[in-house]
Amino acid sequence: MGRPPAYDEDSLLSALTECLWDRGYAATPVSLLVEETGVNAASLYARYGSKKGIMLAALEAYAREAIESHRQLLAATPPGVGQIRAVLEHAMACFDDPKARGCFLVNTITSVSEDTPEFSLAVAEAMEIIRRMLREALEAAPDLLPGVKPDEAAAFVQIQIWGIKLLAKLHAAPATAESVIRQTLAALFTEEALSGAHGPD
Amino acid sequence: MGRPPAYDEDSLLSALTECLWDRGYAATPVSLLVEETGVNAASLYARYGSKKGIMLAALEAYAREAIESHRQLLAATPPGVGQIRAVLEHAMACFDDPKARGCFLVNTITSVSEDTPEFSLAVAEAMEIIRRMLREALEAAPDLLPGVKPDEAAAFVQIQIWGIKLLAKLHAAPATAESVIRQTLAALFTEEALSGAHGPD
Repeated sequence: MGRPPAYDEDSLLSALTECLWDRGYAATPVSLLVEETGVNAASLYARYGSKKGIMLAALEAYAREAIESHRQLLAATPPGVGQIRAVLEHAMACFDDPKARGCFLVNTITSVSEDTPEFSLAVAEAMEIIRRMLREALEAAPDLLPGVKPDEAAAFVQIQIWGIKLLAKLHAAPATAESVIRQTLAALFTEEALSGAHGPD
Repeated sequence: MGRPPAYDEDSLLSALTECLWDRGYAATPVSLLVEETGVNAASLYARYGSKKGIMLAALEAYAREAIESHRQLLAATPPGVGQIRAVLEHAMACFDDPKARGCFLVNTITSVSEDTPEFSLAVAEAMEIIRRMLREALEAAPDLLPGVKPDEAAAFVQIQIWGIKLLAKLHAAPATAESVIRQTLAALFTEEALSGAHGPD
């Protein structure tokens, strides 16, 4: 096949991530990664060590982007109901994916078997970072209902994000995910904040 | 090799389901199903048509059990907060699985690719039946907060079940799942009902 194409690290990783996200780890043979990227197996192994190494690099690249996009979302809105609403609505982007791939991190949680505990650890680490960002956002929110604890609420919000992405993957109606968002916000924020943050319906 | 063991349909299906639930569809070659069940590939294909046919039969068997266990749970408790609490606490059984397999249906949602839309349909159908049972339970609940709509609340509760099972698969602390249950019930039921239904802490 001759020399591999002159891929830079970032675009190779991005092509590998797309491929593994499309089909999942177990359903993606290395031969398919070779076919999709045009980089031969020996070069892939030289770079990443093994198929597991490729998957871990892809998970880390995806996680970095997910963390960064949450950071930007949270930075773009002042603390309070609007900030958490923005995060939950961001998860609804999964409904616009024509391939209905859902979230690569969530998909990986459920495909982890006893053979691949390192994937579970990588996902847990990324989820922990995002949960911490949510907790800090909730700690700064002036409009939480009395009794709502930011650390518990952060885990609760994160689970709604997973659920919204699973709904998209299951081809549910987007209205179902919208009702999840409404119910989540109503569970955490004062009525006053909720009515203030509503746009015109 | 010789003749396959005299498996009855139910125990063969149950062995196939365990195997596919352990590792997921893509990571389970037919050769492994043969090895685990002792039934040769020709017999499996004769019964189920294809590897996809085996998976669909396993999903349907698992779904039947999941639906039946929800039916029993709901029948065992009078309508109201206690009934929904029982359903959510039931999902926490995933934390006791030493293999941390999570839920076969939820795992399948995220491992579905464009090659296997029939799995998505099978899971969606089972989820729809369980959601309908939750909706009927919520319609009969005397202690919902004003404004809570049983159909929306049913979808909301179902997503918490998925989230609790994902937390177990991710080896989160059970206390995190318990806080999800508390927050979910507080979002749906009156304070009076919540304090009445609490056991001694």
